[in-house]
Amino acid sequence: MVKITIIANGDFPTHPAPLSAIAEADYIACCDGAANACKAHGIVPDVIVGDADSISPALRQEWADKFVRIEDQDENDLTKTFNFVLQRFRNEQELHFYIVGATGKREDHTIANVALLMDYYDLLENQKLQATIIMMTDHGQFIPHSGKTVIASYKGQQVSIFAHDARNLKSTGLKWPIYDFKKYWQGTLNEALSDHFGIQAEGNYLVFLNY
Amino acid sequence: MVKITIIANGDFPTHPAPLSAIAEADYIACCDGAANACKAHGIVPDVIVGDADSISPALRQEWADKFVRIEDQDENDLTKTFNFVLQRFRNEQELHFYIVGATGKREDHTIANVALLMDYYDLLENQKLQATIIMMTDHGQFIPHSGKTVIASYKGQQVSIFAHDARNLKSTGLKWPIYDFKKYWQGTLNEALSDHFGIQAEGNYLVFLNY
Repeated sequence: MVKITIIANGDFPTHPAPLSAIAEADYIACCDGAANACKAHGIVPDVIVGDADSISPALRQEWADKFVRIEDQDENDLTKTFNFVLQRFRNEQELHFYIVGATGKREDHTIANVALLMDYYDLLENQKLQATIIMMTDHGQFIPHSGKTVIASYKGQQVSIFAHDARNLKSTGLKWPIYDFKKYWQGTLNEALSDHFGIQAEGNYLVFLNY
Repeated sequence: MVKITIIANGDFPTHPAPLSAIAEADYIACCDGAANACKAHGIVPDVIVGDADSISPALRQEWADKFVRIEDQDENDLTKTFNFVLQRFRNEQELHFYIVGATGKREDHTIANVALLMDYYDLLENQKLQATIIMMTDHGQFIPHSGKTVIASYKGQQVSIFAHDARNLKSTGLKWPIYDFKKYWQGTLNEALSDHFGIQAEGNYLVFLNY
Protein backbone atom coordinates (compact mmCIF):
# COMPACT_ATOMS: atom_id res chain seq x y z
CA MET A 1 0.00 0.00 0.00
CA VAL A 2 1.42 3.34 -1.07
CA LYS A 3 0.15 6.75 0.01
CA ILE A 4 0.93 9.31 -2.67
CA THR A 5 0.35 13.01 -2.18
CA ILE A 6 0.41 15.36 -5.15
CA ILE A 7 1.01 19.01 -4.34
CA ALA A 8 -0.43 21.34 -6.99
CA ASN A 9 0.36 25.01 -7.51
CA GLY A 10 -2.78 26.60 -6.04
CA ASP A 11 -2.91 27.94 -2.50
CA PHE A 12 -0.54 25.97 -0.29
CA PRO A 13 -2.68 24.16 2.32
CA THR A 14 -3.07 25.44 5.88
CA HIS A 15 -5.76 23.05 7.21
CA PRO A 16 -4.58 20.00 9.25
CA ALA A 17 -6.24 17.50 6.87
CA PRO A 18 -4.26 18.34 3.70
CA LEU A 19 -1.16 18.98 5.84
CA SER A 20 -1.51 15.45 7.27
CA ALA A 21 -1.80 14.10 3.74
CA ILE A 22 1.61 15.64 3.08
CA ALA A 23 3.15 14.57 6.42
CA GLU A 24 1.96 10.96 6.12
CA ALA A 25 2.74 10.45 2.44
CA ASP A 26 5.05 7.63 1.35
CA TYR A 27 5.74 9.61 -1.81
CA ILE A 28 5.35 13.33 -2.49
CA ALA A 29 4.96 14.47 -6.08
CA CYS A 30 5.07 18.17 -6.69
CA CYS A 31 3.77 20.15 -9.67
CA ASP A 32 6.38 22.49 -11.17
CA GLY A 33 5.64 25.86 -9.51
CA ALA A 34 4.50 24.22 -6.25
CA ALA A 35 8.17 23.38 -5.65
CA ASN A 36 8.70 26.98 -4.54
CA ALA A 37 5.99 26.63 -1.88
CA CYS A 38 7.37 23.22 -0.81
CA LYS A 39 10.78 24.78 -0.27
CA ALA A 40 9.25 27.66 1.70
CA HIS A 41 7.38 25.15 3.92
CA GLY A 42 10.37 22.85 4.48
CA ILE A 43 8.92 20.01 2.41
CA VAL A 44 11.23 17.98 0.21
CA PRO A 45 9.30 16.32 -2.61
CA ASP A 46 10.33 12.97 -4.13
CA VAL A 47 9.68 14.24 -7.62
CA ILE A 48 8.79 17.51 -9.35
CA VAL A 49 6.92 17.24 -12.64
CA GLY A 50 6.15 19.92 -15.20
CA ASP A 51 7.45 22.03 -18.01
CA ALA A 52 9.79 24.01 -15.73
CA ASP A 53 8.19 27.36 -16.47
CA SER A 54 7.08 28.05 -12.88
CA ILE A 55 9.80 26.68 -10.59
CA SER A 56 12.44 29.27 -9.63
CA PRO A 57 15.77 28.90 -11.51
CA ALA A 58 17.70 28.46 -8.23
CA LEU A 59 15.41 25.68 -7.03
CA ARG A 60 15.42 24.10 -10.51
CA GLN A 61 19.19 23.78 -10.05
CA GLU A 62 19.12 22.66 -6.39
CA TRP A 63 16.50 19.97 -7.07
CA ALA A 64 17.67 19.13 -10.60
CA ASP A 65 17.84 15.41 -9.75
CA LYS A 66 14.16 15.44 -8.76
CA PHE A 67 12.89 17.24 -11.82
CA VAL A 68 11.02 15.39 -14.54
CA ARG A 69 10.44 17.75 -17.42
CA ILE A 70 7.37 16.99 -19.53
CA GLU A 71 6.44 19.35 -22.35
CA ASP A 72 2.85 18.90 -23.42
CA GLN A 73 0.53 21.77 -24.15
CA ASP A 74 -2.57 19.56 -24.00
CA GLU A 75 -2.13 18.73 -20.32
CA ASN A 76 -1.66 20.90 -17.26
CA ASP A 77 1.02 20.25 -14.64
CA LEU A 78 -1.42 18.40 -12.37
CA THR A 79 -2.27 15.87 -15.09
CA LYS A 80 1.40 15.47 -16.03
CA THR A 81 2.20 14.79 -12.38
CA PHE A 82 -0.69 12.35 -11.90
CA ASN A 83 0.22 10.41 -15.05
CA PHE A 84 3.87 10.23 -14.02
CA VAL A 85 3.05 8.93 -10.54
CA LEU A 86 0.49 6.43 -11.86
CA GLN A 87 3.09 5.03 -14.23
CA ARG A 88 5.68 4.92 -11.43
CA PHE A 89 3.44 2.92 -9.03
CA ARG A 90 1.11 1.08 -11.39
CA ASN A 91 2.25 -2.37 -10.21
CA GLU A 92 1.60 -1.69 -6.52
CA GLN A 93 -1.12 -3.66 -4.73
CA GLU A 94 -2.99 -0.68 -3.37
CA LEU A 95 -2.70 3.03 -4.13
CA HIS A 96 -4.07 6.00 -2.22
CA PHE A 97 -3.82 9.32 -4.01
CA TYR A 98 -4.25 12.64 -2.25
CA ILE A 99 -4.22 15.90 -4.19
CA VAL A 100 -3.61 19.09 -2.22
CA GLY A 101 -3.06 22.70 -3.25
CA ALA A 102 -5.28 22.27 -6.32
CA THR A 103 -7.65 25.13 -5.46
CA GLY A 104 -7.33 28.79 -4.53
CA LYS A 105 -5.73 31.40 -6.78
CA ARG A 106 -7.31 31.49 -10.27
CA GLU A 107 -10.86 30.14 -10.18
CA ASP A 108 -10.67 28.75 -13.73
CA HIS A 109 -7.82 26.52 -12.54
CA THR A 110 -9.87 25.42 -9.53
CA ILE A 111 -12.82 24.46 -11.75
CA ALA A 112 -10.51 22.66 -14.20
CA ASN A 113 -8.68 20.74 -11.45
CA VAL A 114 -11.92 19.56 -9.86
CA ALA A 115 -13.16 18.42 -13.30
CA LEU A 116 -9.83 16.65 -13.91
CA LEU A 117 -10.27 14.70 -10.66
CA MET A 118 -13.15 12.83 -12.32
CA ASP A 119 -10.89 11.98 -15.28
CA TYR A 120 -8.23 10.57 -12.95
CA TYR A 121 -10.91 8.52 -11.17
CA ASP A 122 -12.10 7.19 -14.55
CA LEU A 123 -8.54 6.25 -15.44
CA LEU A 124 -8.02 4.35 -12.15
CA GLU A 125 -11.36 2.58 -12.59
CA ASN A 126 -10.65 1.65 -16.21
CA GLN A 127 -7.27 0.20 -15.30
CA LYS A 128 -8.97 -1.82 -12.56
CA LEU A 129 -6.43 -0.68 -10.00
CA GLN A 130 -7.15 -0.98 -6.30
CA ALA A 131 -6.93 2.74 -5.76
CA THR A 132 -8.62 5.73 -4.12
CA ILE A 133 -8.25 9.38 -4.97
CA ILE A 134 -9.23 12.36 -2.83
CA MET A 135 -8.73 16.08 -3.36
CA MET A 136 -8.21 17.82 -0.01
CA THR A 137 -8.63 21.57 0.28
CA ASP A 138 -8.59 23.93 3.27
CA HIS A 139 -12.38 23.64 3.41
CA GLY A 140 -13.21 20.02 2.69
CA GLN A 141 -12.65 16.95 0.55
CA PHE A 142 -13.73 16.13 -3.00
CA ILE A 143 -14.19 12.36 -3.29
CA PRO A 144 -15.21 10.70 -6.59
CA HIS A 145 -17.53 7.69 -6.31
CA SER A 146 -19.57 5.43 -8.55
CA GLY A 147 -22.53 3.10 -8.09
CA LYS A 148 -23.77 2.51 -4.56
CA THR A 149 -21.80 3.88 -1.60
CA VAL A 150 -22.09 4.55 2.13
CA ILE A 151 -20.11 7.60 3.20
CA ALA A 152 -18.97 8.28 6.77
CA SER A 153 -20.19 11.63 8.03
CA TYR A 154 -21.44 13.44 11.12
CA LYS A 155 -24.78 15.03 11.94
CA GLY A 156 -24.96 18.48 10.36
CA GLN A 157 -21.96 17.99 8.07
CA GLN A 158 -22.29 20.14 4.95
CA VAL A 159 -22.31 18.01 1.82
CA SER A 160 -22.47 18.74 -1.91
CA ILE A 161 -23.03 16.14 -4.63
CA PHE A 162 -22.01 16.89 -8.22
CA ALA A 163 -23.72 14.46 -10.57
CA HIS A 164 -20.98 14.54 -13.23
CA ASP A 165 -22.13 11.78 -15.64
CA ALA A 166 -24.21 9.80 -13.12
CA ARG A 167 -27.91 9.11 -13.64
CA ASN A 168 -30.71 7.78 -11.42
CA LEU A 169 -29.30 9.47 -8.33
CA LYS A 170 -30.85 8.59 -4.98
CA SER A 171 -29.76 9.21 -1.41
CA THR A 172 -30.48 8.17 2.16
CA GLY A 173 -29.48 10.11 5.26
CA LEU A 174 -29.25 13.52 3.58
CA LYS A 175 -31.45 16.45 4.58
CA TRP A 176 -32.64 16.92 0.98
CA PRO A 177 -32.91 13.66 -1.00
CA ILE A 178 -30.95 13.91 -4.24
CA TYR A 179 -32.31 13.34 -7.74
CA ASP A 180 -31.12 13.69 -11.34
CA PHE A 181 -29.79 17.22 -11.31
CA LYS A 182 -30.34 19.27 -14.46
CA LYS A 183 -28.02 22.07 -13.31
CA TYR A 184 -24.49 21.79 -11.96
CA TRP A 185 -25.30 23.69 -8.75
CA GLN A 186 -28.39 21.71 -7.76
CA GLY A 187 -26.59 19.12 -5.66
CA THR A 188 -24.87 21.67 -3.47
CA LEU A 189 -25.76 22.85 0.07
CA ASN A 190 -27.00 19.50 1.38
CA GLU A 191 -26.46 18.21 4.93
CA ALA A 192 -25.84 14.84 6.57
CA LEU A 193 -28.44 13.72 9.12
CA SER A 194 -26.23 11.31 11.08
CA ASP A 195 -22.86 9.52 11.08
CA HIS A 196 -23.28 8.23 7.54
CA PHE A 197 -25.29 8.71 4.38
CA GLY A 198 -25.87 6.62 1.29
CA ILE A 199 -25.83 7.40 -2.41
CA GLN A 200 -26.91 5.24 -5.28
CA ALA A 201 -26.42 6.10 -8.94
CA GLU A 202 -25.42 4.77 -12.33
CA GLY A 203 -22.07 6.29 -13.29
CA ASN A 204 -19.56 8.50 -11.54
CA TYR A 205 -20.40 11.34 -9.18
CA LEU A 206 -18.38 13.68 -6.98
CA VAL A 207 -19.00 14.18 -3.27
CA PHE A 208 -17.77 17.26 -1.41
CA LEU A 209 -17.60 16.93 2.37
CA ASN A 210 -17.03 20.10 4.34
CA TYR A 211 -14.73 19.49 7.36
CA MET B 1 -28.44 52.93 -16.77
CA VAL B 2 -27.98 51.35 -13.36
CA LYS B 3 -24.80 49.72 -12.08
CA ILE B 4 -25.69 47.08 -9.52
CA THR B 5 -23.08 45.27 -7.48
CA ILE B 6 -23.98 42.13 -5.55
CA ILE B 7 -21.63 41.21 -2.72
CA ALA B 8 -21.69 37.48 -1.95
CA ASN B 9 -20.40 35.76 1.16
CA GLY B 10 -17.17 34.25 -0.18
CA ASP B 11 -13.80 35.93 0.30
CA PHE B 12 -14.26 39.69 0.46
CA PRO B 13 -12.44 41.18 -2.57
CA THR B 14 -8.99 42.74 -2.32
CA HIS B 15 -8.22 43.36 -6.03
CA PRO B 16 -8.88 46.89 -7.43
CA ALA B 17 -11.30 45.61 -10.11
CA PRO B 18 -13.98 44.13 -7.79
CA LEU B 19 -13.34 46.95 -5.30
CA SER B 20 -14.08 49.46 -8.09
CA ALA B 21 -17.28 47.58 -8.89
CA ILE B 22 -18.33 48.24 -5.28
CA ALA B 23 -17.11 51.86 -5.21
CA GLU B 24 -18.80 52.79 -8.50
CA ALA B 25 -22.09 50.98 -7.91
CA ASP B 26 -25.38 52.88 -8.05
CA TYR B 27 -26.89 50.15 -5.89
CA ILE B 28 -25.18 47.64 -3.60
CA ALA B 29 -27.02 44.42 -2.76
CA CYS B 30 -25.47 42.25 -0.11
CA CYS B 31 -26.03 38.54 0.56
CA ASP B 32 -26.93 37.80 4.20
CA GLY B 33 -23.58 36.87 5.78
CA ALA B 34 -21.62 39.25 3.54
CA ALA B 35 -23.16 42.09 5.56
CA ASN B 36 -20.61 41.37 8.29
CA ALA B 37 -17.75 41.86 5.82
CA CYS B 38 -19.39 45.02 4.42
CA LYS B 39 -19.55 46.49 7.92
CA ALA B 40 -15.93 45.56 8.55
CA HIS B 41 -14.90 47.29 5.29
CA GLY B 42 -16.97 50.42 5.85
CA ILE B 43 -19.44 49.63 3.06
CA VAL B 44 -23.11 50.40 3.60
CA PRO B 45 -25.28 48.26 1.32
CA ASP B 46 -28.62 49.42 -0.06
CA VAL B 47 -30.22 46.09 0.68
CA ILE B 48 -29.32 42.82 2.41
CA VAL B 49 -31.10 39.69 1.17
CA GLY B 50 -31.16 36.20 2.66
CA ASP B 51 -32.59 33.96 5.32
CA ALA B 52 -30.82 35.82 8.14
CA ASP B 53 -28.85 32.78 9.31
CA SER B 54 -25.42 34.29 8.65
CA ILE B 55 -25.62 38.01 9.49
CA SER B 56 -24.59 38.83 13.06
CA PRO B 57 -27.55 39.56 15.41
CA ALA B 58 -26.21 43.05 16.22
CA LEU B 59 -25.91 43.98 12.55
CA ARG B 60 -29.29 42.41 11.82
CA GLN B 61 -30.70 44.92 14.29
CA GLU B 62 -28.61 47.91 13.15
CA TRP B 63 -29.48 47.35 9.47
CA ALA B 64 -33.02 46.03 10.09
CA ASP B 65 -34.51 48.53 7.61
CA LYS B 66 -32.23 47.17 4.84
CA PHE B 67 -32.94 43.51 5.45
CA VAL B 68 -35.18 41.54 3.08
CA ARG B 69 -35.74 38.11 4.55
CA ILE B 70 -36.43 35.39 1.99
CA GLU B 71 -36.79 31.80 3.20
CA ASP B 72 -36.34 29.33 0.38
CA GLN B 73 -34.34 26.15 0.70
CA ASP B 74 -34.16 25.65 -3.06
CA GLU B 75 -32.13 28.78 -3.67
CA ASN B 76 -28.92 30.06 -2.14
CA ASP B 77 -28.47 33.62 -0.90
CA LEU B 78 -26.83 34.74 -4.14
CA THR B 79 -29.84 33.68 -6.20
CA LYS B 80 -32.25 35.25 -3.72
CA THR B 81 -30.30 38.49 -3.96
CA PHE B 82 -30.08 38.43 -7.76
CA ASN B 83 -33.81 37.75 -8.11
CA PHE B 84 -34.68 40.53 -5.66
CA VAL B 85 -32.52 43.07 -7.49
CA LEU B 86 -33.77 42.01 -10.92
CA GLN B 87 -37.35 42.51 -9.74
CA ARG B 88 -36.42 45.89 -8.22
CA PHE B 89 -34.83 47.24 -11.42
CA ARG B 90 -36.61 45.29 -14.16
CA ASN B 91 -38.10 48.40 -15.75
CA GLU B 92 -34.79 50.21 -16.12
CA GLN B 93 -33.44 50.91 -19.63
CA GLU B 94 -30.03 49.35 -19.09
CA LEU B 95 -28.68 47.17 -16.28
CA HIS B 96 -25.10 46.27 -15.46
CA PHE B 97 -24.71 43.56 -12.85
CA TYR B 98 -21.42 42.89 -11.09
CA ILE B 99 -21.07 39.99 -8.67
CA VAL B 100 -18.14 40.09 -6.25
CA GLY B 101 -17.16 37.91 -3.27
CA ALA B 102 -18.70 34.83 -4.91
CA THR B 103 -15.55 32.71 -4.78
CA GLY B 104 -12.99 31.71 -2.16
CA LYS B 105 -13.87 29.79 0.98
CA ARG B 106 -15.72 26.51 0.23
CA GLU B 107 -14.92 25.30 -3.29
CA ASP B 108 -18.35 23.67 -3.73
CA HIS B 109 -19.87 27.13 -3.28
CA THR B 110 -17.42 28.60 -5.81
CA ILE B 111 -18.36 25.96 -8.40
CA ALA B 112 -22.09 26.45 -7.72
CA ASN B 113 -21.88 30.25 -7.93
CA VAL B 114 -20.02 30.14 -11.25
CA ALA B 115 -22.63 27.70 -12.59
CA LEU B 116 -25.43 29.97 -11.32
CA LEU B 117 -23.95 32.89 -13.27
CA MET B 118 -24.99 31.11 -16.48
CA ASP B 119 -28.52 30.75 -15.11
CA TYR B 120 -28.70 34.48 -14.36
CA TYR B 121 -27.42 35.22 -17.86
CA ASP B 122 -30.12 32.94 -19.31
CA LEU B 123 -32.74 34.73 -17.28
CA LEU B 124 -31.60 38.17 -18.49
CA GLU B 125 -31.51 36.92 -22.10
CA ASN B 126 -34.95 35.32 -21.85
CA GLN B 127 -36.47 38.50 -20.47
CA LYS B 128 -34.89 40.41 -23.35
CA LEU B 129 -33.43 42.98 -20.97
CA GLN B 130 -30.61 45.23 -22.05
CA ALA B 131 -28.29 43.90 -19.40
CA THR B 132 -24.77 42.63 -18.78
CA ILE B 133 -23.55 40.45 -15.94
CA ILE B 134 -19.95 39.90 -14.86
CA MET B 135 -18.50 38.00 -11.90
CA MET B 136 -15.34 39.70 -10.66
CA THR B 137 -12.91 37.82 -8.46
CA ASP B 138 -9.45 38.70 -7.12
CA HIS B 139 -7.94 36.88 -10.10
CA GLY B 140 -10.11 37.72 -13.07
CA GLN B 141 -13.56 38.08 -14.54
CA PHE B 142 -16.15 35.49 -15.55
CA ILE B 143 -18.24 36.89 -18.42
CA PRO B 144 -21.11 34.92 -19.98
CA HIS B 145 -21.60 35.33 -23.73
CA SER B 146 -23.60 33.80 -26.54
CA GLY B 147 -23.34 33.63 -30.31
CA LYS B 148 -20.56 35.64 -31.95
CA THR B 149 -18.47 38.06 -29.87
CA VAL B 150 -15.28 40.08 -29.99
CA ILE B 151 -13.66 40.40 -26.58
CA ALA B 152 -11.16 43.12 -25.62
CA SER B 153 -7.91 41.65 -24.36
CA TYR B 154 -4.14 42.18 -24.34
CA LYS B 155 -1.30 40.13 -25.77
CA GLY B 156 -0.49 37.26 -23.41
CA GLN B 157 -3.67 37.59 -21.34
CA GLN B 158 -4.63 34.24 -19.83
CA VAL B 159 -8.07 33.16 -20.99
CA SER B 160 -10.32 30.18 -20.26
CA ILE B 161 -13.49 29.30 -22.16
CA PHE B 162 -16.11 27.07 -20.57
CA ALA B 163 -18.45 25.73 -23.25
CA HIS B 164 -21.47 25.39 -20.94
CA ASP B 165 -24.25 24.46 -23.42
CA ALA B 166 -22.64 26.00 -26.52
CA ARG B 167 -21.85 23.99 -29.63
CA ASN B 168 -19.81 24.61 -32.81
CA LEU B 169 -17.23 26.64 -30.91
CA LYS B 170 -14.63 28.49 -32.96
CA SER B 171 -12.15 31.23 -32.08
CA THR B 172 -9.82 33.75 -33.66
CA GLY B 173 -6.91 35.45 -31.92
CA LEU B 174 -6.37 32.77 -29.26
CA LYS B 175 -3.13 30.80 -28.97
CA TRP B 176 -5.01 27.49 -29.18
CA PRO B 177 -8.12 27.59 -31.40
CA ILE B 178 -11.14 26.34 -29.49
CA TYR B 179 -13.45 23.49 -30.55
CA ASP B 180 -16.37 21.54 -29.10
CA PHE B 181 -14.96 20.54 -25.73
CA LYS B 182 -15.90 17.10 -24.44
CA LYS B 183 -14.50 17.77 -20.96
CA TYR B 184 -15.12 20.74 -18.72
CA TRP B 185 -11.42 21.55 -18.31
CA GLN B 186 -10.51 21.51 -22.01
CA GLY B 187 -11.13 25.20 -22.65
CA THR B 188 -8.85 26.36 -19.87
CA LEU B 189 -5.28 27.69 -20.07
CA ASN B 190 -5.64 29.56 -23.35
CA GLU B 191 -3.97 32.89 -24.18
CA ALA B 192 -4.87 36.00 -26.18
CA LEU B 193 -2.56 36.86 -29.07
CA SER B 194 -3.37 40.58 -29.28
CA ASP B 195 -5.72 43.30 -28.03
CA HIS B 196 -8.86 41.31 -28.88
CA PHE B 197 -10.04 37.82 -29.71
CA GLY B 198 -13.20 36.45 -31.25
CA ILE B 199 -15.48 33.58 -30.34
CA GLN B 200 -18.30 32.09 -32.32
CA ALA B 201 -20.71 29.45 -31.04
CA GLU B 202 -24.31 28.36 -30.89
CA GLY B 203 -25.56 28.78 -27.34
CA ASN B 204 -24.12 30.26 -24.17
CA TYR B 205 -20.51 30.01 -23.07
CA LEU B 206 -18.47 31.45 -20.23
CA VAL B 207 -15.24 33.39 -20.70
CA PHE B 208 -12.70 33.81 -17.88
CA LEU B 209 -10.20 36.63 -18.34
CA ASN B 210 -7.27 36.71 -15.96
CA TYR B 211 -6.34 40.29 -14.98
